[in-house]
Amino acid sequence: MKCEIIVIGDELLIGQVVDTNSAWMAAELNKQGWDVTHIATINDEADTIKDAISSAFSRVDAVLMTGGLGPTSDDVTKPVLCQYFGGKMIFSQEVYEQNLRYFAGRGLQMNESTRRQAEVPDVCTVIANPVGTAPVMWFEREGKVLVAMPGVPHEMRVAMKGDVLERLRRFAGDNDAILHRTLMVFRNTESGLSERLTDFEASLPSCIKLAYLPIPGVVRLRLTARGSNEPELSKILDEMVEKLHHILGKDVFYNGDTTLAGAVGAILKERGLTLATAESCTGGNIAHEITAIAGSSAYFKGAVVAYSNEVKQQVLGVDAQDLHNYGAVSEPVVSAMAAGVLRTMNVDCAIATSGIAGPDGGTPDKPVGTVWIAVNCRDEQRKECVHFSGSRSYIIERATQRALMMLIDLLIG
Amino acid sequence: MKCEIIVIGDELLIGQVVDTNSAWMAAELNKQGWDVTHIATINDEADTIKDAISSAFSRVDAVLMTGGLGPTSDDVTKPVLCQYFGGKMIFSQEVYEQNLRYFAGRGLQMNESTRRQAEVPDVCTVIANPVGTAPVMWFEREGKVLVAMPGVPHEMRVAMKGDVLERLRRFAGDNDAILHRTLMVFRNTESGLSERLTDFEASLPSCIKLAYLPIPGVVRLRLTARGSNEPELSKILDEMVEKLHHILGKDVFYNGDTTLAGAVGAILKERGLTLATAESCTGGNIAHEITAIAGSSAYFKGAVVAYSNEVKQQVLGVDAQDLHNYGAVSEPVVSAMAAGVLRTMNVDCAIATSGIAGPDGGTPDKPVGTVWIAVNCRDEQRKECVHFSGSRSYIIERATQRALMMLIDLLIG
Repeated sequence: MKCEIIVIGDELLIGQVVDTNSAWMAAELNKQGWDVTHIATINDEADTIKDAISSAFSRVDAVLMTGGLGPTSDDVTKPVLCQYFGGKMIFSQEVYEQNLRYFAGRGLQMNESTRRQAEVPDVCTVIANPVGTAPVMWFEREGKVLVAMPGVPHEMRVAMKGDVLERLRRFAGDNDAILHRTLMVFRNTESGLSERLTDFEASLPSCIKLAYLPIPGVVRLRLTARGSNEPELSKILDEMVEKLHHILGKDVFYNGDTTLAGAVGAILKERGLTLATAESCTGGNIAHEITAIAGSSAYFKGAVVAYSNEVKQQVLGVDAQDLHNYGAVSEPVVSAMAAGVLRTMNVDCAIATSGIAGPDGGTPDKPVGTVWIAVNCRDEQRKECVHFSGSRSYIIERATQRALMMLIDLLIG
Repeated sequence: MKCEIIVIGDELLIGQVVDTNSAWMAAELNKQGWDVTHIATINDEADTIKDAISSAFSRVDAVLMTGGLGPTSDDVTKPVLCQYFGGKMIFSQEVYEQNLRYFAGRGLQMNESTRRQAEVPDVCTVIANPVGTAPVMWFEREGKVLVAMPGVPHEMRVAMKGDVLERLRRFAGDNDAILHRTLMVFRNTESGLSERLTDFEASLPSCIKLAYLPIPGVVRLRLTARGSNEPELSKILDEMVEKLHHILGKDVFYNGDTTLAGAVGAILKERGLTLATAESCTGGNIAHEITAIAGSSAYFKGAVVAYSNEVKQQVLGVDAQDLHNYGAVSEPVVSAMAAGVLRTMNVDCAIATSGIAGPDGGTPDKPVGTVWIAVNCRDEQRKECVHFSGSRSYIIERATQRALMMLIDLLIG
């Protein structure tokens, strides 16, 4: 099935908010084997909304829409949809009661504008929204479907996972089981991998597809199986995963789909190891990535962001002489930072970074983008000096990813 | 002038990458007084690209395009643009030499596929790209313009700021000076502010517009002046800013446009104060936000991410008895964390957080989303227990913003 996404919101068109909804939705639709061929971001005007729906319906059968469903007066989406699909607005007792419960659960009173959230077009099927007050609406006409969802990311995600994807599968007549297995691979470029896997790809049964999903330094390999016999598909997928493991060996660092920090966490958890970080230029971003993973407290003890030299010395025990002789961005300092946090936080593994994120602070010797990274697992330590070029946030992001990758490399061996 | 943005990239349509380019571009175009009325995200197919350009040109005069300009074979954008505008591909010695210099500057050799980056349509004006190898291309036809830029955010931004915006201004015949002043306001809702500013808005000279740009807890008020006499405009703007300060008093916490962490930094810098954070549930995200600001090392000394109770005790000196009696998510613990990092890092100000980011770990007493926050400035301390509901990342994000706001509140008084 081909799908399009329409995102409604003036705040997106003036650049106040970055749209993360459509990427998330696209990834979920893609996992169902459906193609998202167009994403349109438009404003909250009746004609614009109608034109966007008509254009989308001229190309595809399923349209997913987010935003424009708030209780304030400038949200015209609901009446426009009602008109487009030829219905009239009615008061839904069901939505009203669900919203009463929602407010009561948070110890709040409902006011008039939120009461209006219970008004819905009589031509749609309302799908319950357990985590907000805007109704999710399902419209069908002439073999086409439009699903309107709130723009709040959490509400949209709960709706998609809760009911919308399942209904779309029924709409598409997709009775096939669809299963995915992802392997995360490093030390290979996408093109290098594709060469190594030529024979493997040729040998795949027709019910299985292989997708390459690269991010800097990593290629995620996703195997998708589709068919009516789920146990059988699962068995074939297991065999294919084993075959990939056999071909790629330790270049596969994680069996599953997660972030680099998620992979680090899974490896640490499996081995019963603990981690701490000592961060200068990454400024806490590695700790932030690691703690973004639910359950990270099982292996992550903490971090010292040692932005000043004073903190490097006093909290991490870095030698003042080393700071003076080699500078903060140097092998001896980053090495001592890793050792220091390992000792201070009494952990098995450590990551340390020290670099120049810019835009100022570079020298001819150590230009902006120079980053020293050290990773420890007990007595073993690896160090590397890397150079990135780009903005401050890009350098911080890349140094974070590189540091996590170095720890995985050390752990996997 | 009305503009549209076309974003090209299969990686966006499968949800592998979140598009941050269009929000950034929209904000820049909006600052020029131009409206972005449509953003289309499409794939890298010739017909799709041509249809998107034709649709956009049927509605507006200026189209900005990003992506699809890489050296790999699946990037068809350049030849499609060439065909659309009726030209032929030529080899640009100028782009080639610029790319040679770019590679030499990074100690790299140019290969065949990057050599192809110097092939450009003869019907466009090439704008130099000093931070990458893909050329920026300016096409004009029948009073309409299309600018094609690389999808790499850093390259796109340098191009926009470097030459593209200025050329667009000339294209639009915009000879007016355009000046902005932003004030960041808290302790007010958008609607409350708009009521307080009714008279002020009515009194604004016609050359000045006021925009409300809300983010959670904060409203940015942006005054835009447009006219031919720049010194005069600047003077009027200064007067209006002063008037706003007079009306809103200490609810204006920052004179300028930045993030909350940027505002915290500016206030600290102005007052010669230093800061450290002690983070449990926010996991280093506050430190990350603060160090995302260039020059933050002038006031930020560091952070302790105290994820385990052991670290809370040993590094921050939290009392074991308090942890046992009240739990980690409690007033005494967060208070001791702030005091501990203040002492350990020898700073003037501190922020501490301890909460339950979920999805697990909640109790009836302390459900997921419960966060204790303490902020210190020397001897003064404020504490607050807040409740957020949503995903783990949302709770971390909101707790971060709330903590920064509490520190601003304490500093401003």
